Amino acid sequence: MANSFGKIFRITTFGESHGPAIGVILDGCPAGLPVDEAFIQAELARRKPGQSKITTQRKEDDAVKILSGVFEGVTTGTPIALVIENTDQRSKDYSHIADRFRPSHADFTYETKYGVRDYRGGGRSSARETAARVAAGAIAKLFLQANGIAVRAYVSQVGDIKAPSFTKLDLSKTEENIVRCPDPETAEKMIALIDQVRLDRDTIGGVVTAVIENAPVGLGEPVFDKLHAVLGQAMLSINAVKGFEYGSGFDGVAMRGSEHNDLFYRDGDTTRTRTNYSGGIQGGISNGEQIYFNVAFKPVATIMQDQDSVDKDGNPVTVSGKGRHDPCVVPRAVPIVEAMAALVLADFLLRARASRVKP
Amino acid sequence: MANSFGKIFRITTFGESHGPAIGVILDGCPAGLPVDEAFIQAELARRKPGQSKITTQRKEDDAVKILSGVFEGVTTGTPIALVIENTDQRSKDYSHIADRFRPSHADFTYETKYGVRDYRGGGRSSARETAARVAAGAIAKLFLQANGIAVRAYVSQVGDIKAPSFTKLDLSKTEENIVRCPDPETAEKMIALIDQVRLDRDTIGGVVTAVIENAPVGLGEPVFDKLHAVLGQAMLSINAVKGFEYGSGFDGVAMRGSEHNDLFYRDGDTTRTRTNYSGGIQGGISNGEQIYFNVAFKPVATIMQDQDSVDKDGNPVTVSGKGRHDPCVVPRAVPIVEAMAALVLADFLLRARASRVKP
Amino acid sequence: MANSFGKIFRITTFGESHGPAIGVILDGCPAGLPVDEAFIQAELARRKPGQSKITTQRKEDDAVKILSGVFEGVTTGTPIALVIENTDQRSKDYSHIADRFRPSHADFTYETKYGVRDYRGGGRSSARETAARVAAGAIAKLFLQANGIAVRAYVSQVGDIKAPSFTKLDLSKTEENIVRCPDPETAEKMIALIDQVRLDRDTIGGVVTAVIENAPVGLGEPVFDKLHAVLGQAMLSINAVKGFEYGSGFDGVAMRGSEHNDLFYRDGDTTRTRTNYSGGIQGGISNGEQIYFNVAFKPVATIMQDQDSVDKDGNPVTVSGKGRHDPCVVPRAVPIVEAMAALVLADFLLRARASRVKP
Amino acid sequence: MANSFGKIFRITTFGESHGPAIGVILDGCPAGLPVDEAFIQAELARRKPGQSKITTQRKEDDAVKILSGVFEGVTTGTPIALVIENTDQRSKDYSHIADRFRPSHADFTYETKYGVRDYRGGGRSSARETAARVAAGAIAKLFLQANGIAVRAYVSQVGDIKAPSFTKLDLSKTEENIVRCPDPETAEKMIALIDQVRLDRDTIGGVVTAVIENAPVGLGEPVFDKLHAVLGQAMLSINAVKGFEYGSGFDGVAMRGSEHNDLFYRDGDTTRTRTNYSGGIQGGISNGEQIYFNVAFKPVATIMQDQDSVDKDGNPVTVSGKGRHDPCVVPRAVPIVEAMAALVLADFLLRARASRVKP
Repeated sequence: MANSFGKIFRITTFGESHGPAIGVILDGCPAGLPVDEAFIQAELARRKPGQSKITTQRKEDDAVKILSGVFEGVTTGTPIALVIENTDQRSKDYSHIADRFRPSHADFTYETKYGVRDYRGGGRSSARETAARVAAGAIAKLFLQANGIAVRAYVSQVGDIKAPSFTKLDLSKTEENIVRCPDPETAEKMIALIDQVRLDRDTIGGVVTAVIENAPVGLGEPVFDKLHAVLGQAMLSINAVKGFEYGSGFDGVAMRGSEHNDLFYRDGDTTRTRTNYSGGIQGGISNGEQIYFNVAFKPVATIMQDQDSVDKDGNPVTVSGKGRHDPCVVPRAVPIVEAMAALVLADFLLRARASRVKP
Repeated sequence: MANSFGKIFRITTFGESHGPAIGVILDGCPAGLPVDEAFIQAELARRKPGQSKITTQRKEDDAVKILSGVFEGVTTGTPIALVIENTDQRSKDYSHIADRFRPSHADFTYETKYGVRDYRGGGRSSARETAARVAAGAIAKLFLQANGIAVRAYVSQVGDIKAPSFTKLDLSKTEENIVRCPDPETAEKMIALIDQVRLDRDTIGGVVTAVIENAPVGLGEPVFDKLHAVLGQAMLSINAVKGFEYGSGFDGVAMRGSEHNDLFYRDGDTTRTRTNYSGGIQGGISNGEQIYFNVAFKPVATIMQDQDSVDKDGNPVTVSGKGRHDPCVVPRAVPIVEAMAALVLADFLLRARASRVKP
Repeated sequence: MANSFGKIFRITTFGESHGPAIGVILDGCPAGLPVDEAFIQAELARRKPGQSKITTQRKEDDAVKILSGVFEGVTTGTPIALVIENTDQRSKDYSHIADRFRPSHADFTYETKYGVRDYRGGGRSSARETAARVAAGAIAKLFLQANGIAVRAYVSQVGDIKAPSFTKLDLSKTEENIVRCPDPETAEKMIALIDQVRLDRDTIGGVVTAVIENAPVGLGEPVFDKLHAVLGQAMLSINAVKGFEYGSGFDGVAMRGSEHNDLFYRDGDTTRTRTNYSGGIQGGISNGEQIYFNVAFKPVATIMQDQDSVDKDGNPVTVSGKGRHDPCVVPRAVPIVEAMAALVLADFLLRARASRVKP
Repeated sequence: MANSFGKIFRITTFGESHGPAIGVILDGCPAGLPVDEAFIQAELARRKPGQSKITTQRKEDDAVKILSGVFEGVTTGTPIALVIENTDQRSKDYSHIADRFRPSHADFTYETKYGVRDYRGGGRSSARETAARVAAGAIAKLFLQANGIAVRAYVSQVGDIKAPSFTKLDLSKTEENIVRCPDPETAEKMIALIDQVRLDRDTIGGVVTAVIENAPVGLGEPVFDKLHAVLGQAMLSINAVKGFEYGSGFDGVAMRGSEHNDLFYRDGDTTRTRTNYSGGIQGGISNGEQIYFNVAFKPVATIMQDQDSVDKDGNPVTVSGKGRHDPCVVPRAVPIVEAMAALVLADFLLRARASRVKP
């Protein structure tokens, strides 16, 4: 069950970086949802490698096939299987790491846990797995759209370059530059930094911020499945993520309660809050305000430099920097964050239908 | 299932702040574990209100009763039910909030989601629920101890007062002061700050840091149940938590890969890393190094001041500060963080038994 | 998780026959359901020992306490904990079997699986555990009643004495005799047989038949959670059950398809079937007809006779018949079958709310 | 989650009868298991249509592809995706039932539940889905073999023709005839009956009996996941199954306890029972004896005759018998029963590893 996520709207992913294919089964998608295949494909294009000069130059078409669950363009309530063939495998690139452990990768832990591993491109631990999430997440987004909910993410930090608060940004501009930061000026600096890092044969981290608009009051479940707790698990399950915070987050620590509390007021027929340090979630349940959170990504572990390491037998070895990799993962992480957020929201939308005796 | 946590070593909690009792069923605890009831009680004492001048003066004995699953002092493999009666209920204290929503509490979201709520002391949304987690977590700790694993947490920040890195601290000193910071000098400042906040009839946030020693390589499951992802959900499910980071966390964002990568080396028969920015987890699986993470707590929402709000019918009202509450939650949160971490580790220890054809 | 049942409307039971208490947490019951405690108690009375001359003379009051989840008489959407103290424990009665295995009981398998067991009255394997199910099932019944659904079971066979088909019976008469068979003539014979068996210091098996009226079309999920598959698991999980069949069941094997197929016709605005060999379930999903099934119970393993066995060390021993036991379990099994059926139906009613994009 | 089965060794299936493909993800298979693809293919051949004169003449190659989870012939602990393309779809055959409900099929219930359905060949409700189970079950069998456990099923009844008890049969002969009954004389009669039924353009039911050899003591979990309860769900989830019984089953009802109890004795170092009415399971846990059970299959609903029915709009219609179908399903059900039994056993083998503090 480690490869499944969600309670009702539930995905199970499979596939290794250099196996025949990766994919996902989405079980629990309600019947009657029109499925726009071009939209799924467009979401995959936002994640795919080789999309710009600041991403890896590896090429994958990431063409998705729907094997089940959709009939005459509409979901039928049965499991939706989505498969993406691995076309640009170049397995030979990886023979040099068959027996040695790349620093800060999963080679050592997989080898020790399982006694065997598919070393090609990191196998199951490769971020390639996230393409399956993006495909399923696209269907989640369609379901959310049918309910008026929008999920939007963008790059808010690269290295120590930070964008202004999302409340001051026009998120519709996110796709206008290759780093996916809606503030053009900051975007320029980020791109320059990533370019420099690439020339240094190094990598750098970043932060993706997500904002969910128009979620109804009532999503999230006490106690362990608080909305932000499940969002947290979802984000932390993405490769290279080191941290998650929502609302005031770590900065809220230094605030006083009298400053941090979001006072309720009445806006027409709606109960709202004057501030939103709660990040749209109170007691683990959405309160109707914007839901927002930050996701911290470490610098990608694969660098184009020689590094000391050990092999399976404990001998000292050198791991050389080879292949085609991202100097900074966050531009391509934006659709992954959105996909995981959409999957969480879709699941809670369905779970919320069971809250009351009369639905 | 929202009130359950864990896959094999699994808890289900119940109870409202001012109902007859709270409690937990721990299902999946292996048979043959000696259960030290005094230890469970001692863990509850670390969490209970009224333990020092910087915590709420509310009194709860928190006496735990074991109703099942333990026979002649040893677990039998059947579910362990632990119940704690609510003795100091004072329900009258809460009648003033029956119809109004306290700012940044769960009153509004529960009322809207369920159409009904137990308003007394926050009902199910009260942090009192965490006593049940601490009780079950104590048994998890006993199971971890039998496997040589130690889970230790402490207060690393209150407001903007921060302790030095845990690598420079002697964590055995955590219990030597009432704020649970193992650095005596920092502890003194933290206590002074909390005291001042209390006099201001206000509250302040903080950070709890946890360190897990001696976890074997191999805990954590790809893809969605990465060790840090489940730890993240566990921590974010605790009341008042706003953020979670492990290893380098949010600070890792600004680092270069060449600096952040943890190089492997051989220490006798053991493969180790020279640095530990990974926080003891690579690819979602423990690598044998120390596991460490930070948990951010917001300032407690209940303050001893009047605040503007609305009632059920949308009318403007004032919510008055009454009752007995914590000016800062982190000292009492330390055993809760430890309990949730222990529950996660215990579960993964058992899950790891299924990793290979031959166990 | 072995002690939990249900996906949304979910119970987790705990407790040993001779521990301090047994009980259940019902998680996922929707908010807003009025809870009639007297009804829960009345259901428990139908299951409790000592209720008539043909049941065990052991006395248990089975007084249930609601510890959470109900506020001012109505469910709040939070977990409902129900606890029943064990009052008539007489642990001494069981010391003679501490080290020996009663034939066809769970003593040997528990001991071997866990290395330890609570031998008093069978511990966790005692049918006493089913009282917790009946208590939670009573709440499920209240939820079903609010949806117009009725679950009724009765004794259709004792030994080789069989009642006529349920279609020829008036199920409202089930409670009019102590064996719970609505056909008075058959009931009399059953009671006489059980009396004779009791005098022989022996036991006898039986069949309970259940009929569910007014279930809407659409309950049950493909593929593994077909309505009858989950009903089957539910029934087979009851102590002493050896078989389950629904609709035509084992007799359907010898029929031709042309005879067995239930032809559709139109009854006003409703699509119905002329026959009901399907037992109200087609493709695993309810079709609006009566749902009915049979549950086979073996003769109770505890008999008032000496039997050969072995002890823990493999030595031959005699197990003596002692204590107070049922000569035939089915009269008391009727409310248990109803409770489990109600729990299954309640869960599927909630799950069905997620079937379509628009609920 | 309705399309998933198992807790640790867990399958999720997908696919419609006439979509592009069907398949399964097996998550939780331990690492290090050699996977014999020819064996998987051979198991599929036992299930596939067109294998003999008494099965449907539809042709499907059922060629399985492994997309993930196996590296250099060995499982890696990551999810194993198995896909079977649908090659002989002939969708036109089914246009006549797009708007009408075939008697005793799932057409009506799917249409009503989901508001939409893939009517081609029954879509998701087709028994074609069971090919995915057989593929995953083949891997479960390999895992069981590595633990010395054998799962064998055979046809024990067709119509009212019954084979002798399995204790009198040589199960190695099951594959020697096309009806898969190891008793040659009975097999001959069964084949003649099926032939006659086929000529009558009708169908007939049957019983499959399964026998599991060499399962260790300790498989199965109290309370709800008793070994036989989960086996029951597994079997009842197979298309056309109407009943399940284990050990003495429904016949046990008429027995006395003194006759039915299985007395323990010592056979060398092993505790065994003299009789085995328990069917190898006591208290829901395997006791080391042979595990055996019966599965009742109804006559296939598709018959080559005209039948009255209604269409979507409630109009009376005739459903004509067309296409290529099985006159009796049990010969092809044998490998399906084995597959589901193997999946259940594999899961419990892994779950049992968590029973004790020291594994």
